[in-house]
Amino acid sequence: MPITVKALQKFGPDQPFKVTEIERRDPREDDVVIKIEAAGICHSDLHTIHNEWGQAHFPLAVGHEIAGTVEAVGSAVTKFKVGDRVGVGCLVNSCGQCEQCVAGFENNCLKGNVGTYNSRDVDGSITQGGYAQKITVNERFVLRIPDALDFDVAAPLLCAGITTYSPLARWGVKPGMKVAIMGLGGLGHMGLQFAVAMGAEVTVLSRSLSKAEEAAKLGAARTLATSEEGFFKKYRGEFDLILNTISAPIDLNAYLGLLKPRGVLSVVGLPPQPLQLRMGSLVGGGKVLTGNNIGGIPETQEMLDFCAEHGIGAVIEKVAVDQVDEAYERVAAGKVHFRVVIDTATFEDVPVSA
Amino acid sequence: MPITVKALQKFGPDQPFKVTEIERRDPREDDVVIKIEAAGICHSDLHTIHNEWGQAHFPLAVGHEIAGTVEAVGSAVTKFKVGDRVGVGCLVNSCGQCEQCVAGFENNCLKGNVGTYNSRDVDGSITQGGYAQKITVNERFVLRIPDALDFDVAAPLLCAGITTYSPLARWGVKPGMKVAIMGLGGLGHMGLQFAVAMGAEVTVLSRSLSKAEEAAKLGAARTLATSEEGFFKKYRGEFDLILNTISAPIDLNAYLGLLKPRGVLSVVGLPPQPLQLRMGSLVGGGKVLTGNNIGGIPETQEMLDFCAEHGIGAVIEKVAVDQVDEAYERVAAGKVHFRVVIDTATFEDVPVSA
Repeated sequence: MPITVKALQKFGPDQPFKVTEIERRDPREDDVVIKIEAAGICHSDLHTIHNEWGQAHFPLAVGHEIAGTVEAVGSAVTKFKVGDRVGVGCLVNSCGQCEQCVAGFENNCLKGNVGTYNSRDVDGSITQGGYAQKITVNERFVLRIPDALDFDVAAPLLCAGITTYSPLARWGVKPGMKVAIMGLGGLGHMGLQFAVAMGAEVTVLSRSLSKAEEAAKLGAARTLATSEEGFFKKYRGEFDLILNTISAPIDLNAYLGLLKPRGVLSVVGLPPQPLQLRMGSLVGGGKVLTGNNIGGIPETQEMLDFCAEHGIGAVIEKVAVDQVDEAYERVAAGKVHFRVVIDTATFEDVPVSA
Repeated sequence: MPITVKALQKFGPDQPFKVTEIERRDPREDDVVIKIEAAGICHSDLHTIHNEWGQAHFPLAVGHEIAGTVEAVGSAVTKFKVGDRVGVGCLVNSCGQCEQCVAGFENNCLKGNVGTYNSRDVDGSITQGGYAQKITVNERFVLRIPDALDFDVAAPLLCAGITTYSPLARWGVKPGMKVAIMGLGGLGHMGLQFAVAMGAEVTVLSRSLSKAEEAAKLGAARTLATSEEGFFKKYRGEFDLILNTISAPIDLNAYLGLLKPRGVLSVVGLPPQPLQLRMGSLVGGGKVLTGNNIGGIPETQEMLDFCAEHGIGAVIEKVAVDQVDEAYERVAAGKVHFRVVIDTATFEDVPVSA
């Protein structure tokens, strides 16, 4: 018998959230049922639910930054037991057999993976995300949250964390390297902390210096305003790696000029329109322009363990279930420092909407 | 007393070549004087001398694919002795002290290196390239040509060879990988041979199948015509690495679609105009777009040794000094399979132009 739980759903892009009841499947033999303790609000949630990434399937609960406790396990589950502290990120299934899945890159599954919300699941249903009391997930896509991490600061690690950890780890950030983080938001503040913990000297690049103090608290050696006159000339050839976390269009050629020879500009934001790129910006100095899309499950676990080891978590503010509409406005306006997390315990306090 | 030698110079972009006399400096203590045996004709020579890469300094001898024999050495030269078989590529000097030079990436010298022709040398003169009887070069920029390689097939390795070897080595081409080479010209036919020797399964991508037979002889598993209907859909996700050797504009997003997740599109050609790039083409699958500009001196030596070990050389036709104007027309028209090399011994047969 399916499990009925409260969730926050939207019925259209311009509708307010409603508290509804949705059904989570009873655990299959390889499933874990998770009581959700905290659910992060990611910019992707807004893009999806505002139909900016295609038509969303309404009614829809979004949320792919999920932390909680195992409440039940299927008969064949081996990795988890009731009471374990766990998380779920952007993926809830994949083929498990293609070369990408076998290599631990479920995010690149060649058969197409199943997203945590707004995706067609293996049973044909549309997945419903983490703005809910519980979720049932195949154990392959459940992560272990170390005891050192509270649920609320851990939840955003499942998307914002892995999205920034993966490119920094992939390109070998280490002591002696000069790294720049473009944008200090939900993603950027995680990238900053990771790069600092990996031993790099980290610069935050922002349009203004308004977040310089917060950046310094998170370990930045400095914040530079890209609006500064002559900026791209002054800092030419400065960085080994630049991680671009902003989704606005940028002048790729100018930013590639900030790299040392063989330097890397890694992009995790998705500007809506194509950008202009001169091949000479890459050929001269043998530079690298690359993108990254979350990470695989093994690397996500590695990231969580890295956070526990280095005392890293998201910098968050908590909101109750009935404050999410208001929080969305602040997220859209870039006024959140740096991540909003829904306290899912507050579902208890609100009735199902009429 | 400087050394007077015959050279082939142009006096303007639209002028024919003239046989002139130029002076090579007497060897400084760290210089090597090389009797040139073969000089390759590179597309860069045409771009430069046709003023397509800025104003050339006329009168100018181009040529940066040079093979020959050591004729004299300066008092402090330790690496070479008279009679040694040597080569010179695109560079004849660099600061030697910046982090790039120290790391063996003289091609990325932070102080700006000295090109083999049309560059301002450390003494203020304009460098004159390899279409000449002799050249005097600092020993740091002289390569050793293994006995297994004839001068004429070795000369083009100094530019076309290293330009294609470097990206393939950098990105770890090895058995089990599927590599595509875009364009089968002077660069492409070298990239093809290298990738095959590194153990990859190599596909040549060309507008038509007209060079399929030649590609097969050089080791290609197949040639595919990119003009084939539905090409980019049919071969989606096919390759680990694509090496783009063509200078014409391409649809970057379409070619990135041909890569497997985490695949690499490495560019060594320089289209004149910027290209349109969607960030999603990189973010989805975590793909890499990169460029490469020749290589450093240690890697150039490694490439020459690799060629000797694997029996690789350029596929060439030889021309005499008085055939270079005609050869340029065929190079510009893409009718050369695959490299023209000037037999510099024929300088003996031609008088200095009036």
